[in-house]
Amino acid sequence: MSAYHPLTEQDAISIAADIEHFFPEGASLQCREIGDGNLNLVFHISDPASGKSLIMKQALPYAKVVGESWPLTLDRGRIESEKLVLDGKLAPGLVPNVYFYDAVLALTVMEDLSDHVIMRQGLIAGNRYPRYADDISTYMAQTLFYSSDLGMNQQQKKEQVGKFINPELCKITEDLIFDDPYTDSPNNSFDEAIRDAAQALWADEELQLEVALLREKFLTQAQALLHGDLHTGSVFVTEASTKVIDPEFAFYGPIGFDIGAAIANLLLNFAGQEHWSADAAARSDFRRYLTDTVRNVWQLFASKFRALWDEHGIDRLANASSSYKELYMARLLQDTAGFAGCKIVRRIVGLSHVVDIDRIPDAAAKEKAQRLALAIGTALIRNNRNIQSIEEVIDAALSAASESA
Amino acid sequence: MSAYHPLTEQDAISIAADIEHFFPEGASLQCREIGDGNLNLVFHISDPASGKSLIMKQALPYAKVVGESWPLTLDRGRIESEKLVLDGKLAPGLVPNVYFYDAVLALTVMEDLSDHVIMRQGLIAGNRYPRYADDISTYMAQTLFYSSDLGMNQQQKKEQVGKFINPELCKITEDLIFDDPYTDSPNNSFDEAIRDAAQALWADEELQLEVALLREKFLTQAQALLHGDLHTGSVFVTEASTKVIDPEFAFYGPIGFDIGAAIANLLLNFAGQEHWSADAAARSDFRRYLTDTVRNVWQLFASKFRALWDEHGIDRLANASSSYKELYMARLLQDTAGFAGCKIVRRIVGLSHVVDIDRIPDAAAKEKAQRLALAIGTALIRNNRNIQSIEEVIDAALSAASESA
Repeated sequence: MSAYHPLTEQDAISIAADIEHFFPEGASLQCREIGDGNLNLVFHISDPASGKSLIMKQALPYAKVVGESWPLTLDRGRIESEKLVLDGKLAPGLVPNVYFYDAVLALTVMEDLSDHVIMRQGLIAGNRYPRYADDISTYMAQTLFYSSDLGMNQQQKKEQVGKFINPELCKITEDLIFDDPYTDSPNNSFDEAIRDAAQALWADEELQLEVALLREKFLTQAQALLHGDLHTGSVFVTEASTKVIDPEFAFYGPIGFDIGAAIANLLLNFAGQEHWSADAAARSDFRRYLTDTVRNVWQLFASKFRALWDEHGIDRLANASSSYKELYMARLLQDTAGFAGCKIVRRIVGLSHVVDIDRIPDAAAKEKAQRLALAIGTALIRNNRNIQSIEEVIDAALSAASESA
Repeated sequence: MSAYHPLTEQDAISIAADIEHFFPEGASLQCREIGDGNLNLVFHISDPASGKSLIMKQALPYAKVVGESWPLTLDRGRIESEKLVLDGKLAPGLVPNVYFYDAVLALTVMEDLSDHVIMRQGLIAGNRYPRYADDISTYMAQTLFYSSDLGMNQQQKKEQVGKFINPELCKITEDLIFDDPYTDSPNNSFDEAIRDAAQALWADEELQLEVALLREKFLTQAQALLHGDLHTGSVFVTEASTKVIDPEFAFYGPIGFDIGAAIANLLLNFAGQEHWSADAAARSDFRRYLTDTVRNVWQLFASKFRALWDEHGIDRLANASSSYKELYMARLLQDTAGFAGCKIVRRIVGLSHVVDIDRIPDAAAKEKAQRLALAIGTALIRNNRNIQSIEEVIDAALSAASESA
């Protein structure tokens, strides 16, 4: 391969044709660029005759955010590809297969999942995904346990920490999630209607102490190899399948950050039901589906993680002490709640929002949804170190909703 | 340089003669190998005519412990040399100057400190070191603050974490300090007279929970670039000078592990005064010097670390919250106490002992010193998460001594 250059559709077709044993010899390949062009090129390459297709994702050497372009390492292509390959071994069937990776071009060629939809879009459309809680909890339990000091050789884990050092993408999280929302930063973006709520965050020292403690964990705690961006936009679903994609933010961090991302985005959709549900009965029904999913995600994760530990734990001292296990799992839930709170708050007042709320057309409903999300998020942050049960997380959402009603 | 080979004295002389601007042209150099041969070759090379001298330290590709030889990475030579160079910038005058490093030979050439003595030997001889507390606290505050997320660019810190990944030397600590002493391991080594005390450790689930929590911090918390082995055998002293040596265990870990090492070894000497002091009055007097030093080490460290944070803190959120600072410093003291406890216990029942206690010739005095050390160590481990003041650490030592008297 030559030096790095952004691929044209024709380049993409030649690379695809060269992949062994994929497309039939001499196939007439079609190619569409389907990325949003902000961070990556994404090519969909297909052979209509055989019905075969694949996805080719190339990292761009910059990110486009709010019109501005800033340089961003191509190394995230390597990180994404290596994490997908690891995930494929630890959680088979729950990530796209990787067919090919080229380091120079920062290019990953993988399974086409065009029959799936992005879960965030599916939830907005009012769909339910009966496999999601079971699959995402399996994905998290397997990938997090087996990359942690509980489940893998502790010396190899240290080498793996080194391979997944990801400063530039971590910096995005550190700024946009764990800093900007709590000060009057030019990166923030929020509707004028809720300026008072944003200002309240900037003045709330008690809340900021909790965020500082969570930020410290994000900066220092190399607990497991995280996906790092596990929101509902990073999950492809059908009713029968769940595929986790886009792990370019992968790094060694606190386990609760991944679980918190999953739960936060269910609760953001919960807040958005202010608009997306047809009426009060439908709203309460869909919200119950969402809180049931929150409960199932945590409970299934916790029981699978404990089962792996019981059967495959490699740390003698950690295995020996049952009270250590209890404390460990209790702290995971607390971290999950705290990180979920941070991830909710930043989607309302920070740079990057979610369509569950931003696409609400009616200004009053949107403001109500935003205030509800902030009430849930700040409650989770404020109470994170005292939370003892997933029911308290759900109660935070339900009682904020009932106060907002 | 050619491929790695252990140097002869003649090799060492040729390398020394080639170092620019050190020895006079044509000097007649003398060389002695002064290492203990367990881990490293150490050559002392001098020119009697000019009075100039230097130390040449070469890592050996194995460690000799209890007669057995096990392979050990030469990369620790790089880690030691890079850490010494960093320390020299952050804490000038408190480490030997590095003149030259060769990666292939795993060789560091540095300042000769033959006019200093190893502090452990000095304490056994009954000497006091008026500069130690001030110097070691400066060394720790400077090197730990400026390598942490509080004091250095947080993206460069992540790259530095990668450079100091040190699996093999961390494994020694993980096994010998955070595992073996708490089970009937063949690596343990203790006098039959205290078998009951060793067995008590193996059965003590409450203690083991605390050790598991401290072990987890050692495994996962990349808080700052540690020396990693900061006992009184890694410090060269005179009454007017303090030099920290031998940072081959350096890695990113919890700050309290370095401070705990310093304090633990003062307290091991405290226990050894059972024998080394001439009489009860001398014992009580030297022990007061040691506990005063423990207090000064912590208090000076804490005030210097806080001052650096106040003046040079780079984390907006961490700087903004005064209650975060208080919590952070409180946890550092608790970690210090817990790690100090682990470091004391392992020196009594684990593989590697200290001469402060092992060289006590009288069996009864030795046993008394060992039991006293274990009483102090286990008290610190047991209470670590509740400790609020350095006085509680000192009280643990004093009350164990008074019960033992």
